[in-house]
Amino acid sequence: MKKIEIFDSTLRDGAQGEGISFSVDDKLKILQKLDSFGITFAEAGNPGSNPKDLEFFKRAKSLELSNTKLVAFGSTRRKNLTCEEDENLNALLTAETEYVCVFGKSWKLHSDIILGASAEENFKMISDTVSYLTEKGKKVIFDAEHFFDGYKDNPEFALRAVRAAEKAGAVTAVLCDTNGGAFPEEIEEITKKAAEAIRIPVGIHCHNDIGCAVACTMAAVKAGAAHIQGTFIGIGERCGNANLSVIIPNLQLKKGYDCVPGESMEQLTPTACYIAEIANTKLAGSMAYVGRNAFGHKGGMHADGVAKEPKTFEHIPPEAVGNERSFLLSEVSGRSTVLSKLASFDKSLDKNSPETKRIMDKLKKLENIGYQFEAAGASFELLVLKELGRFKPFFRIDHFNVVSSQNYGTFGLEKADAMVKVKVGNRYEITADEGDGPVNAIDKAIRKALEVFYPQLKRTHLIDYKVRVIAKGDSTAAVTRVLIESTDGEKVWTTVGASKDVIDASLSALLDAINYYLYHTAEEAGSLSNKNC
Amino acid sequence: MKKIEIFDSTLRDGAQGEGISFSVDDKLKILQKLDSFGITFAEAGNPGSNPKDLEFFKRAKSLELSNTKLVAFGSTRRKNLTCEEDENLNALLTAETEYVCVFGKSWKLHSDIILGASAEENFKMISDTVSYLTEKGKKVIFDAEHFFDGYKDNPEFALRAVRAAEKAGAVTAVLCDTNGGAFPEEIEEITKKAAEAIRIPVGIHCHNDIGCAVACTMAAVKAGAAHIQGTFIGIGERCGNANLSVIIPNLQLKKGYDCVPGESMEQLTPTACYIAEIANTKLAGSMAYVGRNAFGHKGGMHADGVAKEPKTFEHIPPEAVGNERSFLLSEVSGRSTVLSKLASFDKSLDKNSPETKRIMDKLKKLENIGYQFEAAGASFELLVLKELGRFKPFFRIDHFNVVSSQNYGTFGLEKADAMVKVKVGNRYEITADEGDGPVNAIDKAIRKALEVFYPQLKRTHLIDYKVRVIAKGDSTAAVTRVLIESTDGEKVWTTVGASKDVIDASLSALLDAINYYLYHTAEEAGSLSNKNC
Repeated sequence: MKKIEIFDSTLRDGAQGEGISFSVDDKLKILQKLDSFGITFAEAGNPGSNPKDLEFFKRAKSLELSNTKLVAFGSTRRKNLTCEEDENLNALLTAETEYVCVFGKSWKLHSDIILGASAEENFKMISDTVSYLTEKGKKVIFDAEHFFDGYKDNPEFALRAVRAAEKAGAVTAVLCDTNGGAFPEEIEEITKKAAEAIRIPVGIHCHNDIGCAVACTMAAVKAGAAHIQGTFIGIGERCGNANLSVIIPNLQLKKGYDCVPGESMEQLTPTACYIAEIANTKLAGSMAYVGRNAFGHKGGMHADGVAKEPKTFEHIPPEAVGNERSFLLSEVSGRSTVLSKLASFDKSLDKNSPETKRIMDKLKKLENIGYQFEAAGASFELLVLKELGRFKPFFRIDHFNVVSSQNYGTFGLEKADAMVKVKVGNRYEITADEGDGPVNAIDKAIRKALEVFYPQLKRTHLIDYKVRVIAKGDSTAAVTRVLIESTDGEKVWTTVGASKDVIDASLSALLDAINYYLYHTAEEAGSLSNKNC
Repeated sequence: MKKIEIFDSTLRDGAQGEGISFSVDDKLKILQKLDSFGITFAEAGNPGSNPKDLEFFKRAKSLELSNTKLVAFGSTRRKNLTCEEDENLNALLTAETEYVCVFGKSWKLHSDIILGASAEENFKMISDTVSYLTEKGKKVIFDAEHFFDGYKDNPEFALRAVRAAEKAGAVTAVLCDTNGGAFPEEIEEITKKAAEAIRIPVGIHCHNDIGCAVACTMAAVKAGAAHIQGTFIGIGERCGNANLSVIIPNLQLKKGYDCVPGESMEQLTPTACYIAEIANTKLAGSMAYVGRNAFGHKGGMHADGVAKEPKTFEHIPPEAVGNERSFLLSEVSGRSTVLSKLASFDKSLDKNSPETKRIMDKLKKLENIGYQFEAAGASFELLVLKELGRFKPFFRIDHFNVVSSQNYGTFGLEKADAMVKVKVGNRYEITADEGDGPVNAIDKAIRKALEVFYPQLKRTHLIDYKVRVIAKGDSTAAVTRVLIESTDGEKVWTTVGASKDVIDASLSALLDAINYYLYHTAEEAGSLSNKNC
């Protein structure tokens, strides 16, 4: 089983995708997820380029990663500067990563027009940079930008670029199809030539501009590439980068390569879902392997065939990648994932327990109306506790009312007002508060009312609030899914709500967040027990 | 230039895609669009299978098509019936099409398990069916289902299936990778074998289950296939069918094949958008060639490069496929991106114009409070028009009020109510409406009021509504960014709003969407600039 290094660029090239904008926390979460999946490298920008990346690399140092090496990314030195003088280049060193990735020009057109540099100058920029970083103790991955267009235009120029990097000490030379216009057969042939021309391992970096990024990457591996760059769910500039969630199973399950630990394969779908969720993007239902419909059978004949013998209409068993067969449209939640989660609550639960069936049915029902529990462990736990009869409510919302209004003559709402009445045991509390918008107002009012009974809630607050519209149609009436992250300063938990109404969805997630915390602090002094409700 | 027949199955395989449900009118519209684009064949189901298809074929007869031949689709006769006895088969004849397409089994596993037929019986079903239809005067395209899995399992069985069809008079034998699990190199090799084994032209039909449908189709063409089946925008069961809007430009613009009339290529993007609109699905922004971002440059360096020389970062000129270059505005994109956008409004604007400075300042200010114009070209245009003094407001919101309330004792909001008063010129209109949640309610109320003055708004509706929370802190009070996509059935435009209050943010985006349409319909019909979905 030949080992292939997987180099994920979700945090760098992926951030170039339309509408993608990661917070530092988002980046740290994705990095940890890539690590637990067993990705070899995660590339994440340059600490010198902006304060967000600076903070990210600083905080990333304290993470304990088991599998993934974090990589800082930058370009070769600028034309008229020495390496010592180039601030961007030196900023790479402050990331304190074992590996850095630098890109340089291998297409003469770019060297001529973009850099305005002679061929010799261009190669010197490459070798100076790689030498400099190597001398500073870095392992340097060299990205040969536009290698394929460059090779087609002038093979000697392109090969000299990667030879310069090799000679200066680069550990890997990555051939990039930056414009995404090369066909698999071209990639295969040119990769072969490059692999023959240098001794260090060759890598591949494809874009999807002609719809062939997966096939092109596979073709490069066939020609000898042992390092693959892409993004986990294919996000990236223009048409996106090579999609690792498709390439990894293609190589590992069908071609016998060793890309990630074997046990990770069943985490493929949940991992892709998690990354999409954090990126606040929607995983295409039709995405190979990990899409909600990748094993969804709509045609009656296909559904019947699969019932008789799955392989009549399925190219692999969906469980192999943590996905599942479906005959209806529903969100992804691998049954095996659910089972393994259930076992953590009660070891006696297996797939045949009546409780398991009840929980699966409930999950399916909620998923059908827009819930997704992949990233909302606290809501999932509450759901299970309720179905196992182990959760009793701590309070009840008797009723509430929120008014948003615009003042006469001014544009832009300033405030919304909410009133709420809650019941705890036999006692009622009615109160009101105001906020920036209806959700904020009702959040504040409910907390104000409940803190009378449960003072420990004062320690908690929300740290993230994500809203996502998940179905179309008459769009402001589409289903909205809300994810809320809460903390008491020590622990963080995530809850979910879904509804056609953003207030309703937010409220479900808020109430779950409060209930989860009360459940786990019920024994605390000063708080009422929930026995009376 | 070798001629390739393009066989579109949007109306049959495409209808198996998630959420796709065509009315008879939808099907007729798509058929006419495929015809004007120059597609060779359009496949559209079996008039015997349901009343909708029956009506479709009846009405399709009166269309005058210039390029496209309509094809009815069915299976070979059933095992224990003669062709004369098989109603489904005879229903195909009622379509009165010159061509019919029938599928039969070429994988022994299917013949054994799904049909429960002996090999000889299976081949006889194929030859009987093809002979029968041929004798009735039809040209028969034979789809060899699961040909590649069948060939890998038992080459002789698979080849005998296509030979049976050839001998019985089929005009084309289409090799289908029904499960979508074959790699391009397998497709190429096996297609070559099949093309050697028979004399009639060979076709190819791929699915995207391993992310390689485009590359597989190209590989088959390389091996001699002269007929390509797919769907125009790639919709279809599971992971979808081979995407013709990617394959056609790959073959015609880059490999020199003759698929459609040359002048059609510039209609590629509008045609894909139209079909997506009729199918009520959203074309992925990242789709190769035709996606909104297929030529969108976000990184400052790429934007600079394209400004110097487009081919440094573009694999083809976007105009060649009727798409356009766009510069996505974002935190990482430079001033030059904004400048090149401004130039499209007014060529005299350069980086030193006072208007440019004012616009840049305004942009910066709005971005600081959470706006992002990257994906909201219509809001950007309005901002520029306002700063250039070219936009006068069409209406004013005098005031509004939205109430969301929960009924006593029930959990979950059902409805919100909104009232609004608008001013147009010296006239006022006050009205109210209800909706699923406050945003939907206010959207409906405002439209209701404005349609009194601007009836053209009745043609418009929202097709997507995205909500994103972009800053953290006290999180339900964090800044919310709303992106709204609107259409009048022909054009699509996107607007943005940002505020601490989701209602306020939604309202800004809604008002921009309305203003944008009013601005362009007041000036001249059809002047909207967005070509993409």
